[in-house]
Amino acid sequence: MKKIINSTEKVVDEMLEGMLRAYPGHLKRAPGTKRTVMLAEAPIEGKVAIITGGGSGHLPLFLGYTGKGLLDGTAVGDVFSSPSSNEIFKLTQAVHGGKGVLYLYGNYGGDIMNFDMAAEMAEEEDIETATAIGTDDVASAPPGEKQKRRGIAGILYAYKIAGAKAASGASLQEVKDFTDRAIENTRTMGVALSPCTIPAVGVPTFSIGDDEMEIGMGIHGEKGVERGKLKTADEIAETMTTRVIEDLPFKSGDEVSVLINGLGATAPQELFILFRKVSMILEDAGIKVYKPFVGEYATSMEMKGASISLCKLDTDLKTLLDAPSYSPFLLQQM
Amino acid sequence: MKKIINSTEKVVDEMLEGMLRAYPGHLKRAPGTKRTVMLAEAPIEGKVAIITGGGSGHLPLFLGYTGKGLLDGTAVGDVFSSPSSNEIFKLTQAVHGGKGVLYLYGNYGGDIMNFDMAAEMAEEEDIETATAIGTDDVASAPPGEKQKRRGIAGILYAYKIAGAKAASGASLQEVKDFTDRAIENTRTMGVALSPCTIPAVGVPTFSIGDDEMEIGMGIHGEKGVERGKLKTADEIAETMTTRVIEDLPFKSGDEVSVLINGLGATAPQELFILFRKVSMILEDAGIKVYKPFVGEYATSMEMKGASISLCKLDTDLKTLLDAPSYSPFLLQQM
Repeated sequence: MKKIINSTEKVVDEMLEGMLRAYPGHLKRAPGTKRTVMLAEAPIEGKVAIITGGGSGHLPLFLGYTGKGLLDGTAVGDVFSSPSSNEIFKLTQAVHGGKGVLYLYGNYGGDIMNFDMAAEMAEEEDIETATAIGTDDVASAPPGEKQKRRGIAGILYAYKIAGAKAASGASLQEVKDFTDRAIENTRTMGVALSPCTIPAVGVPTFSIGDDEMEIGMGIHGEKGVERGKLKTADEIAETMTTRVIEDLPFKSGDEVSVLINGLGATAPQELFILFRKVSMILEDAGIKVYKPFVGEYATSMEMKGASISLCKLDTDLKTLLDAPSYSPFLLQQM
Repeated sequence: MKKIINSTEKVVDEMLEGMLRAYPGHLKRAPGTKRTVMLAEAPIEGKVAIITGGGSGHLPLFLGYTGKGLLDGTAVGDVFSSPSSNEIFKLTQAVHGGKGVLYLYGNYGGDIMNFDMAAEMAEEEDIETATAIGTDDVASAPPGEKQKRRGIAGILYAYKIAGAKAASGASLQEVKDFTDRAIENTRTMGVALSPCTIPAVGVPTFSIGDDEMEIGMGIHGEKGVERGKLKTADEIAETMTTRVIEDLPFKSGDEVSVLINGLGATAPQELFILFRKVSMILEDAGIKVYKPFVGEYATSMEMKGASISLCKLDTDLKTLLDAPSYSPFLLQQM
């Protein structure tokens, strides 16, 4: 395992310390917590607060989306492990601006359990919460069983829509409704070429042949839908985009945002080669591309692979997608 | 070699096609060229234009810095190969807004030859050019031989300062002077843990033991200053930061921007762990950190490693570093 770390036990805490040292004017810890960050100016009075969270090892997910016009706070756990309910609760108290708190995270058992427990604690303190859960991964369950689908990179759209809606002064119910709409309109499919290594485990999360790829594999190495020889970029784009299009289904005349996400060790040039073909397929299908995102938005440390997400837009969602936002991590301060 | 590509010959052209498809309102090709991009609104009348270029395979370097308040145009070659002088010249004609063109790129023989030839062609067309060359890599030659030093990730500061100064309406000489000041104030040192593979070559650029690292290795795998066992993040930060500080030298009371750059396959959490220690070392040395950058700014495809850059700021440089800029690639449109 080749990583630039000090010890496997300290990875998460030292990463967080580094991030807080890097962006002191923008981010701070919630009082009494170790593994949370929140906006320096939170709580924002009269605004619905939004919290996300999940396992570490997916940067910019989850911490990197803490920002203005995005999320008010984020709680993380160990690498690929859920944050604690107690820390989520304390973060909830810290960011609550009097208008309720939306919990927005991916569909994983441990995360659901801990966010639900935090919601119960918040209720006892008279803090209203609502929950929206990302379920964009079409490879993880059939269309009829959406509640079983995992949340992956497509949660980007839910973050952006939720953040913009909350910033507009909307109520908790309105923010939840728009967030749910973004989630319902988003579909993702991934491909993995090589595994990553959880520091505390020390061995790769799965093994795969030097000439193989696995379509539909999850970002923690969950089993995909098809393992086979590594295909060309165009073939991979075709397989994944077709599955994504058929699932919603996206139709001629639709307008979509496209996200080509790198899992960590995939060079940006490969992501643009994928986007090239995806945009051709969409063009042929009469689907118009609006504001694509090409880069690393949800990673699995040094895993090699990519995912393709489509989010169907309407006038409301477009306006919210275009709303200004700022995260010190994502905007990289250029 | 596991890459998401169609063929080794098409990597650069298809990557460019993908990028132009992704950002059509922002970027276009210079007329008569295949491997350039320029701002959609260029030439900008009455503004000094800035052009960079170099080999492909380093995204966001070089293409990604084409943007408002940054660079007007970029020419690239094959992976790790210089752009052609003819394309640089055509790009020069296309972006020239009547106030001259600054060529700003890293210190590599092929790039110098081709940019110099383009400058001669431009002179024949009465287009004034000036040149500034990035030489931030302290590992590549001793302090007395700065003209031999390679340019690596620290060129980010030269781009930002040059772009902001040009946007302010300055003359070609003024833009060059400020760019040279940014270059003179910037020092970088890198470490490599694993190699990358040039698509057309098909085998890794170098070999290194499973438990080894090489301090000072260049971004194309050029020999470094010290190969040894992989050390801890804090030890790596200490070695590299000390070398960088001593080289300028940076002194107590100085204010610096810090860039922790990932080479491609290094997880963002490792970069923040490095930043944590670098910021402690600077604190102890009485050097104040202003606006750090932590992320991937100059990569070598799937190479694992990182670099640490410091740029000494003064009042002018701080103002220019804070000036607004926008690149569709870098800002990722959040």
